[in-house]
Amino acid sequence: MKKVLIMNGPNLNLLGEREPDHYGKDTLESVQKRIAVYAAKYGVETMFFQSNSEGGLIDRLHQARQEVDGVVLNAGAYTHYSYALRDAIAAVRLPVVEVHLSNIHAREEFRHTSVLAPVCKGQISGFGVDSYLLGLQALLGFETE
Amino acid sequence: MKKVLIMNGPNLNLLGEREPDHYGKDTLESVQKRIAVYAAKYGVETMFFQSNSEGGLIDRLHQARQEVDGVVLNAGAYTHYSYALRDAIAAVRLPVVEVHLSNIHAREEFRHTSVLAPVCKGQISGFGVDSYLLGLQALLGFETE
Amino acid sequence: MKKVLIMNGPNLNLLGEREPDHYGKDTLESVQKRIAVYAAKYGVETMFFQSNSEGGLIDRLHQARQEVDGVVLNAGAYTHYSYALRDAIAAVRLPVVEVHLSNIHAREEFRHTSVLAPVCKGQISGFGVDSYLLGLQALLGFETE
Amino acid sequence: MKKVLIMNGPNLNLLGEREPDHYGKDTLESVQKRIAVYAAKYGVETMFFQSNSEGGLIDRLHQARQEVDGVVLNAGAYTHYSYALRDAIAAVRLPVVEVHLSNIHAREEFRHTSVLAPVCKGQISGFGVDSYLLGLQALLGFETE
Amino acid sequence: MKKVLIMNGPNLNLLGEREPDHYGKDTLESVQKRIAVYAAKYGVETMFFQSNSEGGLIDRLHQARQEVDGVVLNAGAYTHYSYALRDAIAAVRLPVVEVHLSNIHAREEFRHTSVLAPVCKGQISGFGVDSYLLGLQALLGFETE
Amino acid sequence: MKKVLIMNGPNLNLLGEREPDHYGKDTLESVQKRIAVYAAKYGVETMFFQSNSEGGLIDRLHQARQEVDGVVLNAGAYTHYSYALRDAIAAVRLPVVEVHLSNIHAREEFRHTSVLAPVCKGQISGFGVDSYLLGLQALLGFETE
Amino acid sequence: MKKVLIMNGPNLNLLGEREPDHYGKDTLESVQKRIAVYAAKYGVETMFFQSNSEGGLIDRLHQARQEVDGVVLNAGAYTHYSYALRDAIAAVRLPVVEVHLSNIHAREEFRHTSVLAPVCKGQISGFGVDSYLLGLQALLGFETE
Amino acid sequence: MKKVLIMNGPNLNLLGEREPDHYGKDTLESVQKRIAVYAAKYGVETMFFQSNSEGGLIDRLHQARQEVDGVVLNAGAYTHYSYALRDAIAAVRLPVVEVHLSNIHAREEFRHTSVLAPVCKGQISGFGVDSYLLGLQALLGFETE
Amino acid sequence: MKKVLIMNGPNLNLLGEREPDHYGKDTLESVQKRIAVYAAKYGVETMFFQSNSEGGLIDRLHQARQEVDGVVLNAGAYTHYSYALRDAIAAVRLPVVEVHLSNIHAREEFRHTSVLAPVCKGQISGFGVDSYLLGLQALLGFETE
Amino acid sequence: MKKVLIMNGPNLNLLGEREPDHYGKDTLESVQKRIAVYAAKYGVETMFFQSNSEGGLIDRLHQARQEVDGVVLNAGAYTHYSYALRDAIAAVRLPVVEVHLSNIHAREEFRHTSVLAPVCKGQISGFGVDSYLLGLQALLGFETE
Amino acid sequence: MKKVLIMNGPNLNLLGEREPDHYGKDTLESVQKRIAVYAAKYGVETMFFQSNSEGGLIDRLHQARQEVDGVVLNAGAYTHYSYALRDAIAAVRLPVVEVHLSNIHAREEFRHTSVLAPVCKGQISGFGVDSYLLGLQALLGFETE
Amino acid sequence: MKKVLIMNGPNLNLLGEREPDHYGKDTLESVQKRIAVYAAKYGVETMFFQSNSEGGLIDRLHQARQEVDGVVLNAGAYTHYSYALRDAIAAVRLPVVEVHLSNIHAREEFRHTSVLAPVCKGQISGFGVDSYLLGLQALLGFETE
Repeated sequence: MKKVLIMNGPNLNLLGEREPDHYGKDTLESVQKRIAVYAAKYGVETMFFQSNSEGGLIDRLHQARQEVDGVVLNAGAYTHYSYALRDAIAAVRLPVVEVHLSNIHAREEFRHTSVLAPVCKGQISGFGVDSYLLGLQALLGFETE
Repeated sequence: MKKVLIMNGPNLNLLGEREPDHYGKDTLESVQKRIAVYAAKYGVETMFFQSNSEGGLIDRLHQARQEVDGVVLNAGAYTHYSYALRDAIAAVRLPVVEVHLSNIHAREEFRHTSVLAPVCKGQISGFGVDSYLLGLQALLGFETE
Repeated sequence: MKKVLIMNGPNLNLLGEREPDHYGKDTLESVQKRIAVYAAKYGVETMFFQSNSEGGLIDRLHQARQEVDGVVLNAGAYTHYSYALRDAIAAVRLPVVEVHLSNIHAREEFRHTSVLAPVCKGQISGFGVDSYLLGLQALLGFETE
Repeated sequence: MKKVLIMNGPNLNLLGEREPDHYGKDTLESVQKRIAVYAAKYGVETMFFQSNSEGGLIDRLHQARQEVDGVVLNAGAYTHYSYALRDAIAAVRLPVVEVHLSNIHAREEFRHTSVLAPVCKGQISGFGVDSYLLGLQALLGFETE
Repeated sequence: MKKVLIMNGPNLNLLGEREPDHYGKDTLESVQKRIAVYAAKYGVETMFFQSNSEGGLIDRLHQARQEVDGVVLNAGAYTHYSYALRDAIAAVRLPVVEVHLSNIHAREEFRHTSVLAPVCKGQISGFGVDSYLLGLQALLGFETE
Repeated sequence: MKKVLIMNGPNLNLLGEREPDHYGKDTLESVQKRIAVYAAKYGVETMFFQSNSEGGLIDRLHQARQEVDGVVLNAGAYTHYSYALRDAIAAVRLPVVEVHLSNIHAREEFRHTSVLAPVCKGQISGFGVDSYLLGLQALLGFETE
Repeated sequence: MKKVLIMNGPNLNLLGEREPDHYGKDTLESVQKRIAVYAAKYGVETMFFQSNSEGGLIDRLHQARQEVDGVVLNAGAYTHYSYALRDAIAAVRLPVVEVHLSNIHAREEFRHTSVLAPVCKGQISGFGVDSYLLGLQALLGFETE
Repeated sequence: MKKVLIMNGPNLNLLGEREPDHYGKDTLESVQKRIAVYAAKYGVETMFFQSNSEGGLIDRLHQARQEVDGVVLNAGAYTHYSYALRDAIAAVRLPVVEVHLSNIHAREEFRHTSVLAPVCKGQISGFGVDSYLLGLQALLGFETE
Repeated sequence: MKKVLIMNGPNLNLLGEREPDHYGKDTLESVQKRIAVYAAKYGVETMFFQSNSEGGLIDRLHQARQEVDGVVLNAGAYTHYSYALRDAIAAVRLPVVEVHLSNIHAREEFRHTSVLAPVCKGQISGFGVDSYLLGLQALLGFETE
Repeated sequence: MKKVLIMNGPNLNLLGEREPDHYGKDTLESVQKRIAVYAAKYGVETMFFQSNSEGGLIDRLHQARQEVDGVVLNAGAYTHYSYALRDAIAAVRLPVVEVHLSNIHAREEFRHTSVLAPVCKGQISGFGVDSYLLGLQALLGFETE
Repeated sequence: MKKVLIMNGPNLNLLGEREPDHYGKDTLESVQKRIAVYAAKYGVETMFFQSNSEGGLIDRLHQARQEVDGVVLNAGAYTHYSYALRDAIAAVRLPVVEVHLSNIHAREEFRHTSVLAPVCKGQISGFGVDSYLLGLQALLGFETE
Repeated sequence: MKKVLIMNGPNLNLLGEREPDHYGKDTLESVQKRIAVYAAKYGVETMFFQSNSEGGLIDRLHQARQEVDGVVLNAGAYTHYSYALRDAIAAVRLPVVEVHLSNIHAREEFRHTSVLAPVCKGQISGFGVDSYLLGLQALLGFETE
């Protein structure tokens, strides 16, 4: 695993600014820096992408299939209904780890279902910004330790 | 976080022996050793418990509230219907991370729902034995790095 | 009605210690004492049993069919899915009054259904520790007044 | 608790005359007398009201908010669908105990749901005429003993 | 069968005036006359009652248990949700025939279910004003022919 | 209305022999005679058909569209799932009255739904053998009286 | 549009007194005055009616079909199940605007469905007392501006 | 309230040209002019945005949080499934009024549910182009009158 | 097939004593003797186990994987919800035949579903004590005849 | 039990030819011979019938009520929706044992429900051709041994 | 592909005569001629079969497995519930193309589901008589062009 | 029909490269060429468009209403939830034929429903790349042959 894409879906560009008491004051930019540093410790290069557009996320994922070895994906609310994104994940055949800031299984009913899960390697949910680092670690496995 | 309980539910005692092509040849014992070693690197002491009995798991969780700082729980099939275990988790008020070997959201319909999730800190699902290590890491957070 | 069994299911052993602001500071032990005193006023002997185990509750109920004249049962979360306990209640043919500390019909959806109700004499729900005393009174009827 | 309203909904005026083998031969009038006597022992004054009309029950409940300290309510079949009555209970902010002659949770499916329960203090179901006395006792609590 | 009550529920007072192209120009009054004449041919006396109030219908039905030998009931929209009316029908133990002007099973989904049906003798639906005459005939049976 | 087909579906050939205490001792043959006599009083000729076969009923109905002016149909259990019979009724464009011996709305859940109803003129349910006579009368209307 | 009826359903008579922090301190009377003044600016006469009775609301609506040109209706909880009121709205063929103080689509599940909506002109929900003024404005349209 | 964004979702760019008999001949442009004029009477500046893209609407809403004091949103069909848009509304914390040209509660089943409603101030549905003006008025309140 | 385990779940220890008119007077002990004799005729050794505990049944099944060639299982009410037992059956990879005394498909709705069935060889339901003998015969097959 | 009818429903005429690897190479004819031989050992005469027609199966079952003492029925896919066949089974009042080659509870969702079960003596499912022999044995009971 | 069976289910024998404005004036006979001519252009022989009987269609399909290379099937209303026909299609292992005159996905809810689809090669729906020609073309593929 | 737009939704740009064993090695480009050639034989000009964006597809469809006479649409996963695309199809009032490479009715449950179908002319599903040619042919009809 040499290169990983960290992909964020709708509204995650507002991270840090939105409900800072709840999500912390880290902006998406600072989070991405933290991820890059963490990955570098394992010799992994990171790329980042955020879009509020379902099509934009699919386009980027298609492009990724030639560029990276794995994907950490926080698809935001698209998690719950974007069958198009699901088909894209299945099509690119990269290992994709699904991550969520909050514990989606402990929130509103509609957030309990991930239509992406059946084509993802696994799911990590509920650990705030740490979810990304755990997702990256999950992609890498613990062989390296 | 000084001390963590790693708790396993029904049928996980057969780990390693059951479907080795799928789950690997690691027995529960060897997995527990691996977890203990990993935890020790962070200065964390680990305790282990496995039971096929719903009541046994609840009893152990009650006892844990005086002994440990957090729990990594693979509740096996009880995940999907044990409201009694859920109430126990809520009652002991320890941080509990729910882990699963396989990606439960990608399997049979009845495994998509975790009745424990609403009272757990978060959920990690689909990374085989690594799920336990990720769960431990999630409990610890990344402050220590 | 000479002898009554007061039976408590999962997590009720933590009574008094758990969320004291909500449930009061009475421990299960003190509650049981209060029930015994109340019953004694009506010349009724009381027995007590608590278990977190579904099988343990069934075993005790089976044994009770030769020992007591009625049962006051707070089955905790088993209320909502233990068809095995339901069959046990039907089998022993004792009058069983179902009691709940909180008003289960005013809480989460899954708590609105009691699978035990169709084989119980009646249900009392929502009066805190008083639910036990009302349940005992319901077993006795008001003939004695 | 000085004054309590005992309120009965649709068809309860036929009590005693309807299916005497099942419900006993007590008329609503005689039941009300029995309740009044029981309440008097605790120094509580009772008022009674019965109506087959949803609007009539709501009107009476509104009026009660200035007259009594609590309500024992057998709403009959309105229990299962009168959201208007539910809103009335919520609006008057009196403690209301929901009672039922038969165990509604052991009867037809449509009787398992009480739309009133989420705004009532608690529910007592299945003890025949005793349900009213238990409901009154529940309102009073056991402090007085 | 000497005396029959013809009971009409909500909005049937507007008969004849409402959508005359669809329901004909007969007013409720003229329909009632027609029923009375038809019944008289069989030596049957008829009584009539219409109310838009659920409680009003229940009150009248209670009163009817001493006055008539059977009831032809068009409960209008209450057919689909008035469990209180259903309980009233069960309580009075008169033979009640449920009739509907339109074929309720061919209309909106919510009209396909009659909560009254389980306690009625039978149901006649879809024959306009003739539904009342058929309902009356159904009460009488064909012995008299 | 000169000629009417009385059509019976599955198991109605056993009428009279099956559960005579419940359905009476009239055989299908004697019932058909009674209907023929009744119809003759109104100058209406009757034809009869019974089949246990869905396709047989459809074939007969197709043929009927050139022979009769209306149909009284007791489709037995096909009532609840034969969309093919429903399409046949819609296709022949004859007035069809759906009749049932028992009150289908008061029996098992699956009998509450008639897939035929949306294409029938009306439904008569619950009056035993009288249901056929009422169905015939419903076809004729009361103009002739 | 010369004359408009403002009709309020169950529990709205308690407006102003009930939960003043939430709904404001305006009583129904003062709200009605405010509406009357607002309407007068557009040359529209207003009539007011409140009842807790389903039948009472239907009766009033029937009477209104000869008196007014349109109706602003807050049916309270009847909104969610009164098919009888729905039929009344359809029968009187006046333009009816459905209004709600709170945003019913943001509250409990059972409040998300309005059985009245399919026969109303439109729905306004969530603007407190302003909902009435907006409803009136909606009836008038903006031609007059 | 100084500045308001009027935001239109998918297919609303075809307004006026599509089904003119039903929606009128007003184009989106002319409607926007009418809104601007109306708003100006209250001293309110208006901005307009239309997009067929879910991501485009989210992007615009994010940007709006620094520009305007409130939003009138007709999200078209996204209303019924765009949880991403819902999250955006919650994130920007502006008052958003949801409007619809037709009465969505009187149309196909899938249009009865708004996934946006729980995070909007209120909903106005069914008044054609007037819905926008009412939505604007709802944002302003009636204090200014 | 040399050795078979006959395993009984909750409440089956009461066999013979419970409702003797319905289930016969055979106790579990006498039934087990009868099975042992029957099996011996085919040269098959039998082992027996009964527990009211879900965990106990799982433990015993795990142990069985080294001891027997097949299992006849009457899981009682656990049949309908014990996914933990289901996982145990799948894990031990022994042929398991599911048996029931009564015809579970002809009883209450909740008994129609067996969560164990997808991992069992087959199911035999409704033949009283004979169900065990048929289950044993099913395990053996008819080759031996 | 002197004479038994073995009845097969749709597509079972293709047995042996269809998917021989899965169902074995036995044709329906050879299976029937095997059943006849087995039955003869118990002094039981067997009759056989197969039809792809729902009506054909019902006709044959009606005829059987005078000819045989019991029925072993594999109704194929009609098991899941033929309420007409169910009514026929109830009408003939013969003991009918329902058998299936495959374990229907382990296959597609729609095969989990048997509409015939509530009127059959019992069900045997999943043992291939042995299911017929077990079904026959179940009819006979084990008295004869 | 040398020989193709065109098979029509219930009510399609009325084609041309039924609702000619909607389905055109072509009778089934003339449609079959048109199909035969079209097929002949590709050197394909056609056979035709229509039946209103579910069993008749199954019988014919069984017979076809030795006669033809593919089937074009319009199963009419059996499409929506005939699991027996579905099993027949699976058993004969011929390529079967499902066709419909109208767009079944645009009609009543019950027509949206095809229980046959999971075992058919594909589905063509909504093109009137052309659906048959398209179905034939689909069987042939476009290699021949 | 002079000019047709062939429109492809999400992930179809990966055609040929993705799962070549299943979908063939044809790229979208080569498929489009094949369609163009096929269309040219009928004198029809073709235009092509692919987008992964829901909004992009809607925009293109709007534009198409002035350019082409019909549309062949493979909306990919948007088929199952894009009510916005559905509204666009309804708005442009062009004949649109819905096509799918695989038989969507034979795949996962969520793919069985097409929210587009009610506004499309028809649907063709399951014939791989041939689905496009069949869709084009369906638009043209067979008049030209």
